[in-house]
Amino acid sequence: MNIQAEWMRGGTSKCWIFESDHVEQTGISLDLLLPRIFGSPDSRQIDGVGGATSTTSKAIILTPSTEAGVDVEYTFAQVGIEEAVVDWGSNCGNCSAVVGLYAIKQRWVAPTDEITRVVTRNTNTGQIIVQRVDTPNGALPIVPQAQMPGVATPGYKVGLGFLDPAGKTTGTLLPTGNASDELKVAGRSWKVSMVDAGAPVVVIRAEDLSLNTNDYDSWMSAVELQLPLLDQVRREAAVRMGLAATPEQAARAIPKLAIAAAPGVESANDINVMMLSMGKPHPALAITGSIALSLGARTAGTVLHAIVGDAPRATLRLRTPAGVIETFSEERDGSLLIGADRTARSIASSIIHLPESLGSDAGVKLHSASRAGA
Amino acid sequence: MNIQAEWMRGGTSKCWIFESDHVEQTGISLDLLLPRIFGSPDSRQIDGVGGATSTTSKAIILTPSTEAGVDVEYTFAQVGIEEAVVDWGSNCGNCSAVVGLYAIKQRWVAPTDEITRVVTRNTNTGQIIVQRVDTPNGALPIVPQAQMPGVATPGYKVGLGFLDPAGKTTGTLLPTGNASDELKVAGRSWKVSMVDAGAPVVVIRAEDLSLNTNDYDSWMSAVELQLPLLDQVRREAAVRMGLAATPEQAARAIPKLAIAAAPGVESANDINVMMLSMGKPHPALAITGSIALSLGARTAGTVLHAIVGDAPRATLRLRTPAGVIETFSEERDGSLLIGADRTARSIASSIIHLPESLGSDAGVKLHSASRAGA
Repeated sequence: MNIQAEWMRGGTSKCWIFESDHVEQTGISLDLLLPRIFGSPDSRQIDGVGGATSTTSKAIILTPSTEAGVDVEYTFAQVGIEEAVVDWGSNCGNCSAVVGLYAIKQRWVAPTDEITRVVTRNTNTGQIIVQRVDTPNGALPIVPQAQMPGVATPGYKVGLGFLDPAGKTTGTLLPTGNASDELKVAGRSWKVSMVDAGAPVVVIRAEDLSLNTNDYDSWMSAVELQLPLLDQVRREAAVRMGLAATPEQAARAIPKLAIAAAPGVESANDINVMMLSMGKPHPALAITGSIALSLGARTAGTVLHAIVGDAPRATLRLRTPAGVIETFSEERDGSLLIGADRTARSIASSIIHLPESLGSDAGVKLHSASRAGA
Repeated sequence: MNIQAEWMRGGTSKCWIFESDHVEQTGISLDLLLPRIFGSPDSRQIDGVGGATSTTSKAIILTPSTEAGVDVEYTFAQVGIEEAVVDWGSNCGNCSAVVGLYAIKQRWVAPTDEITRVVTRNTNTGQIIVQRVDTPNGALPIVPQAQMPGVATPGYKVGLGFLDPAGKTTGTLLPTGNASDELKVAGRSWKVSMVDAGAPVVVIRAEDLSLNTNDYDSWMSAVELQLPLLDQVRREAAVRMGLAATPEQAARAIPKLAIAAAPGVESANDINVMMLSMGKPHPALAITGSIALSLGARTAGTVLHAIVGDAPRATLRLRTPAGVIETFSEERDGSLLIGADRTARSIASSIIHLPESLGSDAGVKLHSASRAGA
């Protein structure tokens, strides 16, 4: 059996892209088909296309959308490695970044102007993500040259804009009703902002920790020493945001905690930031976290707004240990689009072979005569 | 730039197969091209086809041979991960197993009879490897069903026969001139055989270690406790084989050490074996090690011959912790072919894309119109 697929890098992940038609033609459930294609269950995924790590055992299934105003509908699949299972429970901000690019390459969407907008719906979450693909002179660049933190080589620039991302978890952007609050933790008072956009995040001020925020090495070291204290703050915020009944019951992953600082006077950046994820400093920012920070910064009264000020900004430069992440905001037809840039590219166009007769044609064919060469 | 390649599993490795013509057309040195294709330097190889482990960062470059009596010439490349380098210094017995299969699929060699012989030359070592590909009824099976230790899923059966493998390192099969020798190590006497075929190996008897060789768990545990002693034996053998001037100067990888035992009376296997590689018990056998054991077993006077006896055997079943490995021997036109079986299959037929203009055509094309679908 042969299945056409595109192997693409999206952000800092590798993702296998399947068109819905192609996988449906196999007549096999994706919960069976994807693990077999990826080589699972096997800690090395040695007999399949999986890369034996969580960031390289991912798939996107997509199709042109029949929904008005939506170009592409896509579903993210986290394919198990040691278990032959597929987790459909969440979206992936990295793999999402390939969808607009794929749609343009397949001519599902014609490139227009300098930036081509591809409206996508992620079916895992229901979220509309408007992808802004750089198409200078109305076409994808011959040689893509966009860079991003965490990837050494260039790709096509793709902005992932989350449509009206506020309150998806708690129902409102500011779950406490306030742009900032005082928390009492460990006998100290903390001025924080609790924001729900993309994901729930509690933002604290680096000055409350007396951090040297111009040097990320010392910042990281100081934070490492204060992780238990920071987790106490995070758990207190969970209660205030209505995410947990008591600090002890707070989930490990929600809310996330971000430490924010004003950049140096001569810096081109808007906010210096360090995000904690699952109790540890994150080298950069998950896209959901960058959206919470961006919408927080637009909101008067937050600790982020105190850093960036009142001037409206179409883009925001967030400095992280791994580099600068640029986010964008735009209002349009009464909706707010907040997003961040990624890079993406196709690594290989492939026909994946499965040896056993899961379907009708179990032979392995090379198709060399009908395919373009080097 | 687009480069056609086949992604194949050979034995317990994943290998990218390139035809020489296709990579030569790029006009780029393989030492530059392969690391870029694989996504190196990057510990995650996130922007390329590499799998970020030594067994998944491998390539084969092959071409029909112009040498009389040789069908295919191939070169193995171990592609660096954190460094953008290629190691051309050795062959890989796992990746080698894809070459005959590829040649049949490309119709470079027509399948004949039950087993199709593809004569290959590995250019890293100069070794002729005759590949015996199972082709029942004169064709590759529609659904390949061969199994091997270490791989959960089936593939095509490929026997890799090394032509006249004796003495490639030391010049002779028995470098000490004897089929077996007594070594004095740690105040004890060890009856060993030192064999150079495929690779130099010193074979010791499990009975000299008082091992329970019917249960690999206890065998493994007992060996773990005696590793320093076994390394002393190995180093003494290095001196006796002319591979080192003193035990201290012996290389860590050469010779390998194998512990051999007679199987139980009712066993279908011929030898129970445990190989030590780089100072640790190996779950199975490198193909070079299995060749040394097989040729050693054919040689009167060795500790292996004492186990298997005089009856000529076309095949030998070597039981390892991971399962049984079958080797074969045949004499033909005055030459000796010794080999072992692997399984191999194609995972995907691909067109690999490189974003930057290393060559003339830097665009990324999907070729969907010209390729077969699911």
